[in-house]
Amino acid sequence: MSNTIGDRIKITIFGQSHSRAIGVTIEGLPAGFAIDEDRLLAFMARRAPGSNPLSTARKETDEPDIISGLAGGRTCGAPLTALIWNNDTRSKDYSNIKDMPRPGHADYTAYMKYGGYNDIAGGGQFSGRLTAPLCFAGGIALQLLELEGVRVYSHIYSIENVKDDPYDLMGPFEDLTEKKLPVINNDVIDKMLHTIEYARNDVDSVGGIVECAIDGVPVGLGEPMFDGIENRIAKLIFGIPAVKGIEFGRGFAAASLRGSENNDEFCIEGEEIRTRTNNHGGILGGISSGMPIVFRTAFKPTPSISRPQQSVSLSKMEEGTLEIHGRHDPCIVIRAVPCVEAVAALAILELIL
Amino acid sequence: MSNTIGDRIKITIFGQSHSRAIGVTIEGLPAGFAIDEDRLLAFMARRAPGSNPLSTARKETDEPDIISGLAGGRTCGAPLTALIWNNDTRSKDYSNIKDMPRPGHADYTAYMKYGGYNDIAGGGQFSGRLTAPLCFAGGIALQLLELEGVRVYSHIYSIENVKDDPYDLMGPFEDLTEKKLPVINNDVIDKMLHTIEYARNDVDSVGGIVECAIDGVPVGLGEPMFDGIENRIAKLIFGIPAVKGIEFGRGFAAASLRGSENNDEFCIEGEEIRTRTNNHGGILGGISSGMPIVFRTAFKPTPSISRPQQSVSLSKMEEGTLEIHGRHDPCIVIRAVPCVEAVAALAILELIL
Amino acid sequence: MSNTIGDRIKITIFGQSHSRAIGVTIEGLPAGFAIDEDRLLAFMARRAPGSNPLSTARKETDEPDIISGLAGGRTCGAPLTALIWNNDTRSKDYSNIKDMPRPGHADYTAYMKYGGYNDIAGGGQFSGRLTAPLCFAGGIALQLLELEGVRVYSHIYSIENVKDDPYDLMGPFEDLTEKKLPVINNDVIDKMLHTIEYARNDVDSVGGIVECAIDGVPVGLGEPMFDGIENRIAKLIFGIPAVKGIEFGRGFAAASLRGSENNDEFCIEGEEIRTRTNNHGGILGGISSGMPIVFRTAFKPTPSISRPQQSVSLSKMEEGTLEIHGRHDPCIVIRAVPCVEAVAALAILELIL
Amino acid sequence: MSNTIGDRIKITIFGQSHSRAIGVTIEGLPAGFAIDEDRLLAFMARRAPGSNPLSTARKETDEPDIISGLAGGRTCGAPLTALIWNNDTRSKDYSNIKDMPRPGHADYTAYMKYGGYNDIAGGGQFSGRLTAPLCFAGGIALQLLELEGVRVYSHIYSIENVKDDPYDLMGPFEDLTEKKLPVINNDVIDKMLHTIEYARNDVDSVGGIVECAIDGVPVGLGEPMFDGIENRIAKLIFGIPAVKGIEFGRGFAAASLRGSENNDEFCIEGEEIRTRTNNHGGILGGISSGMPIVFRTAFKPTPSISRPQQSVSLSKMEEGTLEIHGRHDPCIVIRAVPCVEAVAALAILELIL
Repeated sequence: MSNTIGDRIKITIFGQSHSRAIGVTIEGLPAGFAIDEDRLLAFMARRAPGSNPLSTARKETDEPDIISGLAGGRTCGAPLTALIWNNDTRSKDYSNIKDMPRPGHADYTAYMKYGGYNDIAGGGQFSGRLTAPLCFAGGIALQLLELEGVRVYSHIYSIENVKDDPYDLMGPFEDLTEKKLPVINNDVIDKMLHTIEYARNDVDSVGGIVECAIDGVPVGLGEPMFDGIENRIAKLIFGIPAVKGIEFGRGFAAASLRGSENNDEFCIEGEEIRTRTNNHGGILGGISSGMPIVFRTAFKPTPSISRPQQSVSLSKMEEGTLEIHGRHDPCIVIRAVPCVEAVAALAILELIL
Repeated sequence: MSNTIGDRIKITIFGQSHSRAIGVTIEGLPAGFAIDEDRLLAFMARRAPGSNPLSTARKETDEPDIISGLAGGRTCGAPLTALIWNNDTRSKDYSNIKDMPRPGHADYTAYMKYGGYNDIAGGGQFSGRLTAPLCFAGGIALQLLELEGVRVYSHIYSIENVKDDPYDLMGPFEDLTEKKLPVINNDVIDKMLHTIEYARNDVDSVGGIVECAIDGVPVGLGEPMFDGIENRIAKLIFGIPAVKGIEFGRGFAAASLRGSENNDEFCIEGEEIRTRTNNHGGILGGISSGMPIVFRTAFKPTPSISRPQQSVSLSKMEEGTLEIHGRHDPCIVIRAVPCVEAVAALAILELIL
Repeated sequence: MSNTIGDRIKITIFGQSHSRAIGVTIEGLPAGFAIDEDRLLAFMARRAPGSNPLSTARKETDEPDIISGLAGGRTCGAPLTALIWNNDTRSKDYSNIKDMPRPGHADYTAYMKYGGYNDIAGGGQFSGRLTAPLCFAGGIALQLLELEGVRVYSHIYSIENVKDDPYDLMGPFEDLTEKKLPVINNDVIDKMLHTIEYARNDVDSVGGIVECAIDGVPVGLGEPMFDGIENRIAKLIFGIPAVKGIEFGRGFAAASLRGSENNDEFCIEGEEIRTRTNNHGGILGGISSGMPIVFRTAFKPTPSISRPQQSVSLSKMEEGTLEIHGRHDPCIVIRAVPCVEAVAALAILELIL
Repeated sequence: MSNTIGDRIKITIFGQSHSRAIGVTIEGLPAGFAIDEDRLLAFMARRAPGSNPLSTARKETDEPDIISGLAGGRTCGAPLTALIWNNDTRSKDYSNIKDMPRPGHADYTAYMKYGGYNDIAGGGQFSGRLTAPLCFAGGIALQLLELEGVRVYSHIYSIENVKDDPYDLMGPFEDLTEKKLPVINNDVIDKMLHTIEYARNDVDSVGGIVECAIDGVPVGLGEPMFDGIENRIAKLIFGIPAVKGIEFGRGFAAASLRGSENNDEFCIEGEEIRTRTNNHGGILGGISSGMPIVFRTAFKPTPSISRPQQSVSLSKMEEGTLEIHGRHDPCIVIRAVPCVEAVAALAILELIL
C-alpha cells in the first residue's frame, strides 16, 4: 500500500497538507533506545519551510508530538507514532485549483483517481509537507545507524546550472550542515542563492540534484535481484515529491565508459578488502561491498509558480488560464537534502538490525 | 524477499547460471488467456545471447518449458511456472574466480554474504541469464497489456558515446524490432555496431542507455508516495544486472530547468485532457496522467572482460592478477532492451488488472 | 510487521494502554465515502468498557478523533487516521508486575522479547484496549460492506458452560444488538449474567465463544491455498487478545463426521446455485461459495484476576506470590463480540473492493 | 498472493494435480546447508499416497527433483526450487465433474472464480497433492530447526470418534513415526484402522484431528497483534486442504474455564523461568514463552466419496446426481500429519533464523 514501506523497519505516513495533523508510525524499532530529541529536531529543522534562507513560505515548526511507542523515555517495542499538528492551515480558497489543475502537480491525476474527492487544500496528501514525518522517521534511523558505525552525508550537487564539486566516490565525506548551504565548494553558495533569488524575482522556480553518501555500511548487506540496496533506496526515494531520477555510483555516466574504466579493481588495505575506485557506488549485485554507497537524486523545479499558466476547467472541459497566488518556495532542493538522508537511513537501517 | 516481486501479478524467479534450470512462477494471471507462444518466443529471442549480431557468447535457445498453470491451452488461475533448462553449462573450472573475485561483478559481495557458499559458476544467481525468466513473464504481460490498449516501446538511446535520437516524449512511438538494432535514427546503427566491435577487439566492453515508452496507459493508475508508478518501475528495474540509474520524463535534465519550462500545461484534445508537453513522463504524484510514460535506464559496461585485472585472493588475502578467459558479450545493452520492456509491462499490468 | 495487516485495505494500529493515545491508520478506503459517525460510535460503544452491564472497569468513551483522511466530510483517498486519547491513565504503580509477570498475560514474554523495555502500564501494547482502533476500522468496513449487500452478524455462543443456541448455518441471521446480551435464546441471558457475576464475586473470570456469520458474500471471492478467506480471517482474529482457537462451518465437529454427512450437496434455488446444508461455512478451497460464512472464536478467561497467584521475581529469580489489585472485567467475551465483527468485516472488505 | 507465504523464509508453491509437475521455490534458506536427502525423503514418504496402510489411491513416489539453489551439494543463497513430476496423470475424463461440481470440493467456487477456466483434472490447484511441495519445504525446515534445538512432534488426536490420548501439554513428546499409526495409545491403532476400513467399505470417508507440539522454541520469538506465532501458524495451516479449525494450548476448552484454572503460574526450574501448567500452549501475546507450543488442527472428512450425491449441471442449471468413480483415500488424516509438522516448522524457522 502506498503509504507503508519497509520490511523490518516499517513506516506508515499519514495526513494531508491541511488535515488536522500529519504523522508517521514506525514499527520495528529496537526497544530501549533513547531518542536524542535535540538532534532530531535539528535534523527536522533542516527540512522545515524556514530552512531555505530565502524562503518566505509557510512557517511551521514541524515539532513532532510523540503519542505512543515510548515508555520511560525509551522505545518500548510498540509502534512509535508521532504527529505534527497542522497549525498554519489558513482557510484559503482552493476552489480555483480544484476545478483547474495546476501544471506539474498531482491535482489532475488525483482528481481522476479519486473521482474528484481528493483533498486539494495545500496539495492534500501529495504535499511536500508529508516529508516532515519522513524526516522524523529518518532522523531516528540516523541515530540508530550511528550506533552501528554508519553515517549519512549529503550535499547539493547542483541547483539549476550551478554545480557544486562532486563527491570523491571514495570518500571521505564531510558534515556540511553548519554551512549556509550544504555544499563542498564554498564558492558556489552565493551563486546558488543568486540563482534561487533570480528565479523568485522571476516568479519562477528551479530544480537541482542532491548527492548522498552512506559511509560505514558493512559488506554483505542487501539481497540479489529485486531486494537489492538500489531497489530499496529507489523505491523509497520516489516517495519524495518532485524526484524524477536516481543513479548510483557513476550512474548514467557509466553508460559512456568502457568496462576497463568502470570496473573497480580489488585491493587490500590493512586487513580489509576494498576497491581502488568506487564507480560501483558501494553496491555490487544489490549487495553492499563495504565501500561508500553514493547516489544522486534529481529534483524537478517546484511546479508551484505564480506565473499565469494554461490549464483546463474540469467542470466545463474548456481551456483557461490559471493564476496561483501566494508565496512559493522557489527551490525545494535545499529542504530536500535531509529528506534524501532520511531515505538513505531508513533503507539501510532495516538491513543492519 | 529478493526474488519475488509484485502485488497482484507476483513473479518469483529462480535458478542460477549453471543450475539444472532457471525459471519463473507467475501468480495472478487472469484465467482463460491463451498465450501466443510464437510472439512470446520472438520476444524472448531478442534477449537471448544470439540476439546481439556481434555476440559469440554462449548459445542458448531460451525455450521456455511451461510445467504448470495451463489447462486446455489457457491460463487456469493456478500459478504459471516455466522452466528454461540450462543445457550449455560447460563444466568449466571456476576455482580461480571463486578465490579471486572479478571486478565489477557480485563475486565478492556474494562470497561475503553467503559465507563462501555462493554458486560462482557462470555468476550463479547474479547472472544476466536470470533475465530470461523475467522476459518470459514480461512477454506474457505485454500480450495482456495489448488487450487493454497499452503498448510498450523502446530503443537504444546510446551505446558508449553513440547516441540515437531521443524519443519525442509526446509520441508517437514506433516498433523498431525489425531493424538490425532497435534505434530511431538508422544512421547510428553502424556506429553502434562499430563501437561494440571496437570494444571487442580491444578485449573490452561498453555500456549504454535504453529508453522506454509505455503508451495507452489510462489516467489514474498508481498510488501516491511509495507505491507510485515510478517507485514500482524503479524497484523492478534494479533487478536487471548492470543497471545503475533510472530517470522519468525529462529526468536529470529537469534539474536544470525552470518551473516555467518544465511544467506541462493542460489542454483539451478532442474529448480528452492532455498536456501540451510531456516533461513529466506520464506520471504526476506517482499516478498516470494518460500521457506516455517514458523512462531511461543506464547500463554500466559488462564487467566481464578478458583483460588482466587486479584483484585479491580471498584465501591468501593478497593482491594478484586475474585473467578471465572465454568469450564475453562486449555489450549487453542490445539484449537489455526486451528486459526493460518486460519490467515496464509487469509494473503496469498489475495496476490495470 | 505485527501491527499492520491487509493488502487492499491496510490497517496499522498503534498505541499502548497508557500512551497518550492509541489509534489506527486505514489505507485503501474508497474515496468519496461519508462515514455515518453515529452508527460508528454505536458500534464502538459495544466494545467500550462500559458495554458489559456488569463491568465496573475503566471508563473510557473511546471517542475517535479523526485527524486525517477526510476532505469535506468524505474520505479523500489519503490514509484515514483516527486517535483515541487515553484520558483515564491513572498513574498507578506497575512496579510489582514489572518485576513479577502476571500469569496468562504477555508480561513475561514481552519482558524477554524487549529486554525489559516493554511498557508494562496497563498491559502496554498487549492491552485489550488496542481493540478500540480495530473496531473503529471494522466499523467503517461494516458500513462499506453494507453498500455491497454484505452484513455481519454475531452472538455469544457460550460463556463458561452456558451455551446459547447455535446459528443455523444456513441462516437467516438476526440483529441482536438491541438485546441486553447478544444471544439468540433469551433464556440464557440471565444465566450468562449470573455466571459472570458469580465469577466476579469469586474474584475470578470466565471465557467464552463468539459465533459470527457473514451474509451476502458473493461467490468467487478469496484465493486458494494461503490467501483463502479462512487464512485471512484466522490471521486477523488471533490479533485480538485472548483468542485461542477458530473454526469454520462445522469446524472441529466435522472431524467426527463421515464425508456423506459433511458434504454439502448443491441445489438450485431460484436462479442461483446453493448448497442444501452449510457445513462448509461458506468457504470451499479458500473461496466463497455464496453461502453464509460462519465461524466461531474461542476466548480464554481474562487472565486479570485479583486472586493471589504464584509468579517469579524477574530481578531476584525467585518464586513469590503476586496480587493484582483493582477492578477487573470478569468476562471480556461480551466486549469481544464487536471485535470479531470488525475482523470479519475487514477480511471481506478488501476482497470485494 | 495465494501461493506465496513467509517473510524471511518465503515459499512459493505451484502446480496442479495433473500439470506436468508441481513444486516449490524456497527463498531465504541459510547458505551452506547440506540437506539430508534420506531423511527428507522419509519425511515426504509419510505424506505420499501409499503412506496410509489402507490406501489404494494413486501411487506417486513424490521424489523431489531439485533444479536450483544448490552448489556443491549445499544451499548457496539462491532460491531452492524442487519439482515433483506428475507421472501418474491418467487421462481420465473429467468432463462430468467439470459440469457438475463435487460437493465439498472447490470445483464450484473455482469455476465461478476463474470463469470456468479452472483446471478440473484431479482437483487442479486445489488438490491435496499440492501438500507434497509443502512437505518438501517443511522437511528442510525441520532439519534446520533441529540445528537450533527445536523439534516438532505430532500424533493423530482422533479419527472420526476414535480418540488417541491427548498430549500432556507440558511434554515430553515422543517420536511416533515408527508406529503403524502415529498415536500415543497403541490400543487405538486398530480401532482407527477399522474405522477407516469401515468407511471405505461404506464407500464413505472420515475426518479427524491432528495434534502438534513444537519443543525447544526459545522464549521471546514472534510479534504482538497480527504477527504472533498463532497468526502465522493459522495462516499457513488453512493452506492445507480440508482444514476447518485450529486451536492452541487448551483451545476451545479454555472458553469453559475460569481464569484461576486457565492461568499458568510461573515457577523456576533450574535456572529457567517456566510455567507450572501449559494451558497457554507456549504462546502469550503472540510471543513464545519457552514452553512447548501445542496446537490441534481439525480435518473434515475427504469430500471425495463414490456414493451418488446431488449436484447441479452448471451448463444446464438443473439439479442432477453425480457419481465419482475411482478409488478414494477414505481418510486423509494420516497423510496430513507430516503436513501439519511442515507448517509448524516453516512458521517457526523464520522466527529463529
